[in-house]
Amino acid sequence: MTRTAVALDRADLHASLADPALLSMTFLNEIAGRFPEAVSFAPGRPTEDFFDPSDLHRHLDTYIRHLTADKGYDAAGVRRELFQYGRTKGVVHELIARHLERDEGIVCDPEAVLVTVGAQEALWLVLRALKAGPRDVVLALDPTYVGLTGAARLLDLPVRSVPEGPRGVRPEQVRERIREVRAAGERPRALYLVPDFSNPSGHSLDTGTRRELLEVAEQEDVLLLEDNPYGYFRVADGSRPPTLKALDTGQRVVYLGSLSKTCFPGARVGFAVADQRVTGAGGPALLADELARAKSMLTVNTPPVAQALVGGMLLEHGGSLLEANRRQIDVYRRNLRALLQGLQRRFARMPGIRWIAPEGGFFVVLDVPFPVTDALVEEAAVRHGVLFTPMRHFSDQERAGRQLRLSCSSLDPARIEDGLDRLAALIDERGAAPHA
Amino acid sequence: MTRTAVALDRADLHASLADPALLSMTFLNEIAGRFPEAVSFAPGRPTEDFFDPSDLHRHLDTYIRHLTADKGYDAAGVRRELFQYGRTKGVVHELIARHLERDEGIVCDPEAVLVTVGAQEALWLVLRALKAGPRDVVLALDPTYVGLTGAARLLDLPVRSVPEGPRGVRPEQVRERIREVRAAGERPRALYLVPDFSNPSGHSLDTGTRRELLEVAEQEDVLLLEDNPYGYFRVADGSRPPTLKALDTGQRVVYLGSLSKTCFPGARVGFAVADQRVTGAGGPALLADELARAKSMLTVNTPPVAQALVGGMLLEHGGSLLEANRRQIDVYRRNLRALLQGLQRRFARMPGIRWIAPEGGFFVVLDVPFPVTDALVEEAAVRHGVLFTPMRHFSDQERAGRQLRLSCSSLDPARIEDGLDRLAALIDERGAAPHA
Repeated sequence: MTRTAVALDRADLHASLADPALLSMTFLNEIAGRFPEAVSFAPGRPTEDFFDPSDLHRHLDTYIRHLTADKGYDAAGVRRELFQYGRTKGVVHELIARHLERDEGIVCDPEAVLVTVGAQEALWLVLRALKAGPRDVVLALDPTYVGLTGAARLLDLPVRSVPEGPRGVRPEQVRERIREVRAAGERPRALYLVPDFSNPSGHSLDTGTRRELLEVAEQEDVLLLEDNPYGYFRVADGSRPPTLKALDTGQRVVYLGSLSKTCFPGARVGFAVADQRVTGAGGPALLADELARAKSMLTVNTPPVAQALVGGMLLEHGGSLLEANRRQIDVYRRNLRALLQGLQRRFARMPGIRWIAPEGGFFVVLDVPFPVTDALVEEAAVRHGVLFTPMRHFSDQERAGRQLRLSCSSLDPARIEDGLDRLAALIDERGAAPHA
Repeated sequence: MTRTAVALDRADLHASLADPALLSMTFLNEIAGRFPEAVSFAPGRPTEDFFDPSDLHRHLDTYIRHLTADKGYDAAGVRRELFQYGRTKGVVHELIARHLERDEGIVCDPEAVLVTVGAQEALWLVLRALKAGPRDVVLALDPTYVGLTGAARLLDLPVRSVPEGPRGVRPEQVRERIREVRAAGERPRALYLVPDFSNPSGHSLDTGTRRELLEVAEQEDVLLLEDNPYGYFRVADGSRPPTLKALDTGQRVVYLGSLSKTCFPGARVGFAVADQRVTGAGGPALLADELARAKSMLTVNTPPVAQALVGGMLLEHGGSLLEANRRQIDVYRRNLRALLQGLQRRFARMPGIRWIAPEGGFFVVLDVPFPVTDALVEEAAVRHGVLFTPMRHFSDQERAGRQLRLSCSSLDPARIEDGLDRLAALIDERGAAPHA
């Protein structure tokens, strides 16, 4: 018997599914698929230059040897770890703690490490834990990573923005905003930020600003959610400023780690360091254990085979992701240099075109003298074969309506040059007849 | 400078984290870890008899050959698929659609398949989409899988239960409950159920009941969320009743698939078939696309390497999971037979001990004449070296307070005999001095 087909009204589905933040990401993915030949400055993807399927076999074997030689597993134990349901908090937590100590000077109890399906799941879990009631809100710098906005939307958690200036955030501005939000009857729980080569702005905080932010967070009793996917990708050699977590002596910081850029995105392994003490009914615990309880009802555990692959990669580089990324760091430096030099050659003297050279990372933000909309992206793809990301998807500030984000991480200098020529053609057209 | 350490009050974290459903799962996992030598009838895990790490290498190579030979990918395309961020809805959707047609007679558009991090993520995403407002509730048979309860708790989505009788659910009872819930001002969106060898009750629905349920769902305008992890594990040869989805001519059923029992849990790959049409502002789409939008902000995508492994396994068996599980099916039959015969020999004439023999699956529920609490589980582990799951974690019914769930899937007949002897010793002690 053929029955009447179900037709669900979108108005009867959760509002996040029709949220502009989520829709725009879908649009950008979809348009990239429609124009595979376009030069795409859009995605924040790692370089594919060094991916080799034979590495997967080797990583797996390395991890299995680690289980037997270092951890004393027998064959049954190895089988169980790779194939069976696993520990909710993950199985490569000790390797991640070792990496954090070696690369970041972050000393943490491996029990405070929660391995997740990418940093995105870690972010969602932290927001889930912190939204206890209708007054709870999260703060984020504006512009902010769309993954923060999207995760918050899935939870009906309001995001209160702290506008970044052209050189980044001022801690006093964070304090003012916290007080303003609190005066409005809301409870600010945390500030989300990317202190190193932020996505999308490219800004980085200096060490002094980091210390001041920690002080504001303590005085105002909020957590800092530090997301650090790009920290190793500096243009210059020499010392990096310490992460907030490395400076954090009061467990004020939940550190969100992604292995997508430093190992590979196809494993989808990320983590949170959540070493905050939790007290109250039920006894003391670490925040990581509370997050694990939510994770057990969301994804159960992070795929052990995927953890084994990144675990093997970590082991092959003595636990150091900085070591593992020597060649990649050179590629990103070369690309960012090519992008900045290319911008300089083409647009240095063009009125209304501005950018700030970041000290590293994947992104450069370009101010242009016309509105940057999804329709413009479509036009750029069709007429000029070039793609980029409108900054309005990351920001409520008026200025962002005339900004675009250029990512150079998965290109090479020749493609970057070609893409900039295409972008210049679009800008020439638009610049000649700027919109209101 | 050492700062004051953060101490978060559990009362300031989301209530789900302290929910009994989530706490009990943590307790059960933790106690299994503390007593590794105990005979555990607790976890619903697949047998480990056939796991072999060399299979992982072969599955990966099989999948890579498929990409090059069947899909025409070049080396760069293969690298991109395995290592890079992937399609939000997944990359093995076509293989899953082929399996559903071959094994289940379910013909579906691969675009309606959303590949997820286990069926648990699929379930959460569906519940997220369906909870549009404060009146929305989901129905579930009682007893129900704790993963449904937990996912709903993470969303503050009320679960309204439909009590199962000793032989399963009656569709008329579902209809009555829907009307009752609606009369109370709530909006029932869907009924969650496991029609084949349900976890935890072991019940299965006959074909007539399935058809009636579809009719009730259409007349009352709710969706059916069909979870089917155990369907292939029948005791007897011969025809299986069709899945609800195979009978579903009106897109009334969202089918939730797990590959944890039919491939392996360590891949954490599951899926939803969500072929419902969605209309309204934003244009027409499939429900799978709406769910994908939420997924893009939760886990971004299901690890492509994990999908490649189960994809390779599917390809090695002509796309059939039934074929892939021939040996496993024999193990589960042997184990369930051993468990039922062992129960019969020990408890057939013991007053107050009852069970119903399921026709397949992993679970048998035992009625006992004393309360089954977490404290009793602890006692059973310490004094008798045996573990099981209290049914009260799955049910609000009074009867469940004196029931326990026995799982036999990851044991063998000798361990099952040993475990039943230990259980009999506990029951002897308790039965002699039953609690109030």
